[in-house]
Amino acid sequence: MVNALFLPSMRFSFWSVGKNHEAYVKAGVEEFTYRISKYYKVDWTIIPQPKNAGMMSEMDLKKKEGETILQWLEKDDYLVALDERGKQLSSEGLASFIQARANESTKRIVFLIGGAFGIDDAVIKRANFKWSLSQLVFPHQLVRLILSEQVYRACTILKNEKYHHK
Amino acid sequence: MVNALFLPSMRFSFWSVGKNHEAYVKAGVEEFTYRISKYYKVDWTIIPQPKNAGMMSEMDLKKKEGETILQWLEKDDYLVALDERGKQLSSEGLASFIQARANESTKRIVFLIGGAFGIDDAVIKRANFKWSLSQLVFPHQLVRLILSEQVYRACTILKNEKYHHK
Repeated sequence: MVNALFLPSMRFSFWSVGKNHEAYVKAGVEEFTYRISKYYKVDWTIIPQPKNAGMMSEMDLKKKEGETILQWLEKDDYLVALDERGKQLSSEGLASFIQARANESTKRIVFLIGGAFGIDDAVIKRANFKWSLSQLVFPHQLVRLILSEQVYRACTILKNEKYHHK
Repeated sequence: MVNALFLPSMRFSFWSVGKNHEAYVKAGVEEFTYRISKYYKVDWTIIPQPKNAGMMSEMDLKKKEGETILQWLEKDDYLVALDERGKQLSSEGLASFIQARANESTKRIVFLIGGAFGIDDAVIKRANFKWSLSQLVFPHQLVRLILSEQVYRACTILKNEKYHHK
């Protein structure tokens, strides 16, 4: 990447359990992710469900997904688990949160969206921060779009750009 | 509409100030609105900005938009203004809220998404309920998608259907 040298060293990794982006969110997720890439290195990883997911109990499925996630995490990743029992942030609050991670030389923030039945407790324990987007429950696909838009918004807030106004 | 006789008499009207649905939300808004139409009568109205909007101050623009909205409202419309200073609801809370309106024979719930600078105070005063989706600020286009998905979700909760699980 030509301008890699000019990017801050922190990376955002968006992880989502399940299927590829559905058509109704794909264009938005891709657009906001592209915009984020002008501020930070960024990637998406879709963590596939186990092959026999349909035959597994909800609990076993979550556990299996959790094991994969824990294996894939690097030791110094800062893990943000999107979880409805977590703490809500304002958009400015998210911006400050990201700035704080950059200030402490975090290499990578992993934003994790769980599967249909949520995130396994072992992963929740590993999480450095549990973030609730809202009291509302959103479909996991829509969370991808909301998340990428909010992280983009946070980037513009940190740079004092005019995308965000209240 | 063939099955109109079987629909409850309450209607949902989604009003949004600004432009037509942007490509990145259009498919989702249309899909969820179509799904809602199996439970309630539903329509979208895009309230255009005044022609000389670019020349107007933020305050004048809000006021002008507000006048249009107040003119368009029927006396017995139940107006829900989406406003970040409002009260948050859970998805189940929204379902109960809709049920409560149906129980009191509300003819129409108007869900209003304001323009880029929010909703004029005169309209906020007219609102029967001020609803905040989240502490986060979302773009107005994305709010259309979140709103239609949540109202659809509420319909499925009221019918005890399996779309929603926690």
